[in-house]
Amino acid sequence: MYDAHLTHITVAKLFSNLREPRGSLRLYAPRPTGYHQLSMIAEIIAIGSEMLTPHRQDTNSLYLTAGLNDLGVSVAFKTIVGDNRRHLVSAIRIALSRTDIVVLSGGLGPTEDDLTRECLAEVLHVNLHRDISILNSLRARFAALKMVMPPNNVRQADILDGAHVLHNANGSAPGQYIDTVVEGYRKIIILLPGPPKELKPLFDTECRPRLSVALPARYIARRQLRMALIPESQVDARCAPIYSQFTDVETTILAGHAEIQLHFVCSKPTLEAAQLRVDTLADIIAREMGDDIFSDDGDSLESVVLLMLGVREQTLAVAESCTGGWLGERLTAIPNSSRVFLGGAITYANALKADFANVDPDLIAQHGAVSDPVARAMAEGIRARTRATLGLSITGLAGPTPGTGPDADKPIGLVYIGLADGEDTQVRQLQIHGDRERIRLWSTQHALELLRRSLM
Amino acid sequence: MYDAHLTHITVAKLFSNLREPRGSLRLYAPRPTGYHQLSMIAEIIAIGSEMLTPHRQDTNSLYLTAGLNDLGVSVAFKTIVGDNRRHLVSAIRIALSRTDIVVLSGGLGPTEDDLTRECLAEVLHVNLHRDISILNSLRARFAALKMVMPPNNVRQADILDGAHVLHNANGSAPGQYIDTVVEGYRKIIILLPGPPKELKPLFDTECRPRLSVALPARYIARRQLRMALIPESQVDARCAPIYSQFTDVETTILAGHAEIQLHFVCSKPTLEAAQLRVDTLADIIAREMGDDIFSDDGDSLESVVLLMLGVREQTLAVAESCTGGWLGERLTAIPNSSRVFLGGAITYANALKADFANVDPDLIAQHGAVSDPVARAMAEGIRARTRATLGLSITGLAGPTPGTGPDADKPIGLVYIGLADGEDTQVRQLQIHGDRERIRLWSTQHALELLRRSLM
Repeated sequence: MYDAHLTHITVAKLFSNLREPRGSLRLYAPRPTGYHQLSMIAEIIAIGSEMLTPHRQDTNSLYLTAGLNDLGVSVAFKTIVGDNRRHLVSAIRIALSRTDIVVLSGGLGPTEDDLTRECLAEVLHVNLHRDISILNSLRARFAALKMVMPPNNVRQADILDGAHVLHNANGSAPGQYIDTVVEGYRKIIILLPGPPKELKPLFDTECRPRLSVALPARYIARRQLRMALIPESQVDARCAPIYSQFTDVETTILAGHAEIQLHFVCSKPTLEAAQLRVDTLADIIAREMGDDIFSDDGDSLESVVLLMLGVREQTLAVAESCTGGWLGERLTAIPNSSRVFLGGAITYANALKADFANVDPDLIAQHGAVSDPVARAMAEGIRARTRATLGLSITGLAGPTPGTGPDADKPIGLVYIGLADGEDTQVRQLQIHGDRERIRLWSTQHALELLRRSLM
Repeated sequence: MYDAHLTHITVAKLFSNLREPRGSLRLYAPRPTGYHQLSMIAEIIAIGSEMLTPHRQDTNSLYLTAGLNDLGVSVAFKTIVGDNRRHLVSAIRIALSRTDIVVLSGGLGPTEDDLTRECLAEVLHVNLHRDISILNSLRARFAALKMVMPPNNVRQADILDGAHVLHNANGSAPGQYIDTVVEGYRKIIILLPGPPKELKPLFDTECRPRLSVALPARYIARRQLRMALIPESQVDARCAPIYSQFTDVETTILAGHAEIQLHFVCSKPTLEAAQLRVDTLADIIAREMGDDIFSDDGDSLESVVLLMLGVREQTLAVAESCTGGWLGERLTAIPNSSRVFLGGAITYANALKADFANVDPDLIAQHGAVSDPVARAMAEGIRARTRATLGLSITGLAGPTPGTGPDADKPIGLVYIGLADGEDTQVRQLQIHGDRERIRLWSTQHALELLRRSLM
């Protein structure tokens, strides 16, 4: 399939449909026009009956997909199969019949349920041999733990004839890498252990270098633009006329968590050429979207806000009612946030709005806790109490039960955000749709975005 | 495959390997002993090229798996395939060749990339017909939005000959349900739209009733036990001798997020018989694990703590340093938490520990902010300042950068939890391993668990 004699154009025609995605995540990929970034196809097989229960799913494949894409390989199928010999043999056969590269994760442990080695040997008609050096290192591993190695564990030293051993620094099961010919077609088959902390480094250190030698050289450049709160349809309406002109750049729009991301990927014979194309496109779109863009290098909204505050040598404090600490949690999740974030108050009960944020109880009695004057007083009060440069407040009705007192007739999803800087206090009234979690999350996002825009 | 003449014993032998899972999630299922709960097998095919990128994955299959398991059907394969006619046709063929029930999600939209209907018709050698009543309701839908229906959308009214239409109250694409015979075997094929908010109700209201009539009656009982912070190996060592005696109850141990869950599932000819078995096993294990169990009905740790406080008519306030509001966020995520949770302070900066939680600055200068005396003072101070029954505090080093001043030489992951009730103040010193996020999450879990145990 990746015969050097096949041109990119041919491959593009063979797999053109692969680049026309859809769904609740909308991927806007330009139609192929004689150039295709990803010319080889792969299948990822995740092995383990636990991934066929309602409780767990395969997550390794996201990491593997990113790594394969970087090497110019697209993933055409993912299969999840249990620890069942008949099922696994058939899944491997099917994968080898329809793709060039097959990555198998899981089933390399020592128990009788770990069948990946045996099943692949059966499909390829090759033998397994017990590798003495692996056996010795397994024994040493157990000896270091002052344990006797259970007899079953010797199976982890079984290697397929012709396979390269991928040494696993983080676990007992080595990976295996096979570059072979099956029924006249070259196939690369990779066996990796299932635990992500073993699989990821093994893929990066042992598989990437081998694959980049085995596959034609490709250079991939990426850029990312991030925007908060703006509707996806609006982003698309403004950006589609631009990115659709860049038929050699793959543009993806991702929507979720009160944020829109635009991803650009380009592959060219040189890295400089690829980078130039994604940068050119990203820069034109950045000009179009202007201040809506909070990051062009992958930083999160909270990181950007903390950085802007740091540059200005300003400090921030928060007073949170319906979000109960979530805004503070998001800010303190970022390392070194203590340089600018002082903390604040979770003024969930009305008494604490007075005690910690100087809110006059009469204001609450008159307007309700979810009101413009209370959001304003909370922002000003927390700023004064903490002596921060800026005070940021959130008060709202997150539901599902309605408010009480003066808030009783207000709609669920009504939220007020306040931002005080000592001279001026801004308040935003919002009506956020959705459930309690969504109302709370969007409230924190609105607060961060109000702050970001006021810092620009 | 689910011919009524096949006994459960036969089917158990055919698929016995399906019940022997493994991996980082450890599923302890007893080996089959002539009885098998899940006798029919299904494949779930998720359709959409976006799920073959590094950005998104199929999540519908977890919901569908739970629903199918409830009906006595186990999922043997999951396949993810892009919007590619050749790939989809082949995936459907393979699924029909190896399973009894095939559930397809996605690819029912109006665009040319939505190929599920056409591909299934090709595999089954049946025609599509345009359903006039669906067409009319599609037109009415657009008319209600004061829009003209784009010509492409008529494709959503295309129904496979012999299929039951599954009316979709939450979107434009109807589902389809086919009960047919393929090469001598009865097959049930279900087409569902991809968006979860359409797929889930459609599965529950339209598919479950049809499947429960089509499949032999089974009654499934479930129970769940939840424990915080205890090592999985310890749970297993104490519980395995018990649950391994209950060969007719499927026991699953799930570990994650500073919590262990034990799930019990049993299927019997009557619901009473199934319930009796899971209850008997759950009760014996609950006696063995004693106070370690915080919930036997699925409630979260924060819900349990709020409930216990509510019953005692006690109130709670928090003072959070390294967790920055996360503990408050978890508590306020629960509806009606305002009855017992007053709020508190995010005392991230040391000055706020004094201002909001009455911590003597000399204590911090002498012992460091991450110390037993400061955790004690924070818990007592926030209790006094808020007039709550209980004050709960967290102060720790979440990393990655080390502490400063008296905290400079303390290890990252050192965390102190304080709990004050007005008479007595307890402080726990912890050393939590892992990254910043894990240290912060486990800190909130330790705080909630300390509170729960003190309320017992």
